[in-house]
Amino acid sequence: MQQTKILLDESEIPTHWYNVVADMPNPPAPPLGPDGKPIGPDALAAIFPMALIEQEVSAERWIPIPDEVRQFLTMWRPSPLFRAHRLEQMLGTPAKIFYKYEGISPAGSHKPNTAVAQAYYNKQEGIKRLTTETGAGQWGSSLALVGNKFGLDVRVYMVKVSYEQKPFRRSMMQTWGAEVLPSPTNLTNSGRHILAQDPDSQGSLGIAISEAVEEAASRDDTNYSLGSVLNHVLLHQTVIGLETRKQLEKVGEYPDVIFAPCGGGSNVGGMMFPFFADKAAGKDIRLVAVEPASCPTLTRGHYAYDFGDTEGLTPLMLMYTLGHDFMPPGIHAGGLRYHGDSPLVSQLYKEGYLEAQAVSQIATFEAGVTFARAEGIVAAPESCHAIRAAMDEALRCKETGEAKTILFTLSGHGHFDMASYDKYFAGELEDYDYPEQAIHDALERLPKVG
Amino acid sequence: MQQTKILLDESEIPTHWYNVVADMPNPPAPPLGPDGKPIGPDALAAIFPMALIEQEVSAERWIPIPDEVRQFLTMWRPSPLFRAHRLEQMLGTPAKIFYKYEGISPAGSHKPNTAVAQAYYNKQEGIKRLTTETGAGQWGSSLALVGNKFGLDVRVYMVKVSYEQKPFRRSMMQTWGAEVLPSPTNLTNSGRHILAQDPDSQGSLGIAISEAVEEAASRDDTNYSLGSVLNHVLLHQTVIGLETRKQLEKVGEYPDVIFAPCGGGSNVGGMMFPFFADKAAGKDIRLVAVEPASCPTLTRGHYAYDFGDTEGLTPLMLMYTLGHDFMPPGIHAGGLRYHGDSPLVSQLYKEGYLEAQAVSQIATFEAGVTFARAEGIVAAPESCHAIRAAMDEALRCKETGEAKTILFTLSGHGHFDMASYDKYFAGELEDYDYPEQAIHDALERLPKVG
Repeated sequence: MQQTKILLDESEIPTHWYNVVADMPNPPAPPLGPDGKPIGPDALAAIFPMALIEQEVSAERWIPIPDEVRQFLTMWRPSPLFRAHRLEQMLGTPAKIFYKYEGISPAGSHKPNTAVAQAYYNKQEGIKRLTTETGAGQWGSSLALVGNKFGLDVRVYMVKVSYEQKPFRRSMMQTWGAEVLPSPTNLTNSGRHILAQDPDSQGSLGIAISEAVEEAASRDDTNYSLGSVLNHVLLHQTVIGLETRKQLEKVGEYPDVIFAPCGGGSNVGGMMFPFFADKAAGKDIRLVAVEPASCPTLTRGHYAYDFGDTEGLTPLMLMYTLGHDFMPPGIHAGGLRYHGDSPLVSQLYKEGYLEAQAVSQIATFEAGVTFARAEGIVAAPESCHAIRAAMDEALRCKETGEAKTILFTLSGHGHFDMASYDKYFAGELEDYDYPEQAIHDALERLPKVG
Repeated sequence: MQQTKILLDESEIPTHWYNVVADMPNPPAPPLGPDGKPIGPDALAAIFPMALIEQEVSAERWIPIPDEVRQFLTMWRPSPLFRAHRLEQMLGTPAKIFYKYEGISPAGSHKPNTAVAQAYYNKQEGIKRLTTETGAGQWGSSLALVGNKFGLDVRVYMVKVSYEQKPFRRSMMQTWGAEVLPSPTNLTNSGRHILAQDPDSQGSLGIAISEAVEEAASRDDTNYSLGSVLNHVLLHQTVIGLETRKQLEKVGEYPDVIFAPCGGGSNVGGMMFPFFADKAAGKDIRLVAVEPASCPTLTRGHYAYDFGDTEGLTPLMLMYTLGHDFMPPGIHAGGLRYHGDSPLVSQLYKEGYLEAQAVSQIATFEAGVTFARAEGIVAAPESCHAIRAAMDEALRCKETGEAKTILFTLSGHGHFDMASYDKYFAGELEDYDYPEQAIHDALERLPKVG
C-alpha cells in the first residue's frame, strides 16, 4: 500500500517553539508608541501577561513549551502530514505534493495552537477574562474552545457581517461557553464611534480589534488575545513547521517550495519559520505567502508604520498595510480580510526571503472543489488559497517535467463555509480587483511617524 | 505527559472484516419474499452486486478487505482512540472512559467505511450509477465522497425536512459531485404515491429508501446502496471494533461495557461485533445499544417480519420495528430516525447478548455540551446518545466506586448540527415520549407472514 498519512506520536510534539528572530539577518523593527518612539514592554502590560510580552520581544532561538500546554495540545496534535497521491494523479504532475492538515483540531483550524499558550500564560498571571475579535470565526472558536478549559471567561467581538452570515460558528463558540457579540457594539467607545458614523456598519476585523483591546485595557481582570500578526502568536504556531520537518524526514523528503495562506501571517510564520534558517543559510527553498487579490497586503500594500486596529489603539507596527481604515470587500475568506500583516513576515518579505502571490476568489474555490474531489477534505476558503498556488506549481511542473516536492498548509476545514461553496456553484461569486486609487489613497492616510 | 490518543499506523488497518454470523449461537433468520418464503441471492441481484450479496449471506468468520479498499481507507483510517481524561476529571469518576472517534473522516462520520466497499464492488461489476437515501446527510455525504472517486454517479434522495433544514450537507454532497433531490420526488412511483396522499409530505427515511430502491431496480446500469441495517454494511463497519481492540491492547485495557448510538445498527455492529465472540464465550462484558426515546425501536418495538421501506419494496426482514409506515417526530438525531433495526442486532438483542437503552433528547444535548466543554469535540446529536449513556455509567461508578473501563463510539462530529445545539440553548427542544397507542397500532399494520 502507498502511505497516505505520515503520523507522529504525542511524545513527538515539539518541546520548544522556534523563534525566527534569532536567525534573522536584521533585528525586527520595534513597535512605536503614539509619540513615535519605540515602546517598552510596560506599554503592553495593560492587555498582555508578562510571559507573552517577553516572548514578543525575545531573541532566544528556542523557547520551552510548558508541560501543561503540550498536554493540552495532545487533544489534536501532532497533526497528520498527507501525501496528496490522488491530487497528483488527477493533475498528472511529476511533482510530489504534501499537505499538513490542521483542520483536525476541535475548532477546525490551526488557531488553537496559540490559543492554548495564550490562555495558559494569562491564567498563570491571575487573569479571569479574555477578550478578542473574530472574523470568519476560526480564531474566536479557538479561544472559546481553550479559554473555557482553563477556567477563563471569553468574550468575542465578532465582525457583524460574519455574525449574521455564519451563525453556526457563533453556536460553536457558545457551546464551548463563550459570549459572542456582533461588532461594532455600543459597549465600547470604539464601537460607538463607528456606529455614530455609520449605524449600519457591518464591522471589520480592525474595528473588532479596537473594541476588544479597549475593553481589555479598561479592566484589571481582563486581557486581550490576538489570533495572528504578533510575534508571540507566530512563535506558538511554529509547532506546525517543526512537526512537518520531522514528518518529511521520516520519508526522506525536503520541500522545494512551501505555500501557506496569508492573512495576518500565522500560517506563514507557523509553517515557514522553522525552514527559515536553512533559507538564510543559502538552501534552495522557496517560501511563498498566498493572499487574496481582493486584499493584496503584501503584493500591493505599503511597507510603513501603521496601527493594528481601526481606531488607532494599538502601537504602530512596521508592516505591509492597506491602511488601518481599510474596509475589505465582502469576499468569503474572512480570515484573510485584514489590512496589515505580521511585522516579522513583512520584514522577511521586504528583505527577499519570502515571496508572495495574490490569487483571485473564483480560482481559489475552483481549486477547493478539485481538491475535495481528489483528496476528500472540503477546505476552508482561506486554505483554498494555498491549494490554488500549490496546484498551479504542480501544473508548472507538469509542463517542465520537474519532480519538485511541494508542501502546503491546509489550515482548516470548510464545514462552516458551505454557503460560500454554494455561491461558487451558483456562479454568484465575483473576482474583485483592489483598485489602484484605493491603494494610493491609503498611503495618504497612514499615520505620520517621526 | 498523559497519553490522550492511541494511534495505529496505516499498516494496522484490518486486513479482514469480521463476520459475526460465524460466532452466533443461532443462524440469522432469513429475509422473506412477498410470498413469505425465504428469498435467494438472485432476488437481490437487481439492486446489489453479487459480491455484496455473497457477503450478506456469508457465514465465513473473516472476509478479506480488497487492497484498493484498504488503500482508500488510509484517507482517514485508522481512526484515533481517545482516553477522556478531562471528562473523567470533570465527572469525578473512578471509571476510565475511552472513545473511538470516527468524525475524522472527510464526511464527518463512520459511514464512509462501508461506502468505500460498496462503491468498490459495484464498480468491479460494471455498475455506473448508485442511488441511495439520506436523512441527516451523513450517509449521503459518505457515498458522495466515495462514489465520485470510483467514477460512479451518485443520486441521493434526501428526506425533504432535512434537505431544507440542513442545506450545508447538501452543499457538501454537491461539492463531491453528487446529485441531491428532496424526497418524496415525483420521479418515482413511490414518491408520487406519497405525494398523492400528502402533497406537503416532509418525507422519511422509509420513503426515501423506497424511491432509491425503485430507481435502482428499474435501471441496469444503476444499483442501490444502503448505509446501515444490512449484514454486509455492519460487516464493513467492523474495522471500528477491530482497530479499537488493538488500540486497547496497546494500553493493556479491555472494556467492561461498550455503548454505541443505534439507528439502523451500523455503529452497534461496527464496534460491538468484534467483541461478540468473547461475550458469547462467557466473558463479562456488556454491549449496550443506545437509541432515542422518541424512536424506541429496540426498547419498545415489535420483533417481527417487516419491510425496510415505507412502500414495501424490500424483502421482509425479522427485526425490531415500529412499523414500516412509521412517521418519526422531528427530533434532531436524524440518523436515528428509522422504524427498524439491523436484523443481526435485533436477533442478538432478542437472544440477550446485547442490551438497549433509550435516552431522551434534552438529556442527550446536555451530555453533548458537557462533552464539548471537557473534550473539545462537538459531537453529532446521534453520537450524543452514546455520550449520555457513557456519562451515566461513569456517574454510577462514582457512586459505587467502581473503576470500570467504559468504551463508546463517537460516531461523528456535529459541525452540520449546530442549529440543533442552538435550539437546545434556546430551550426550544422538547422530550417526546412515543405513545403506547402508536406502538400498539403499528402491530396491527405489520405485514402478515406465513
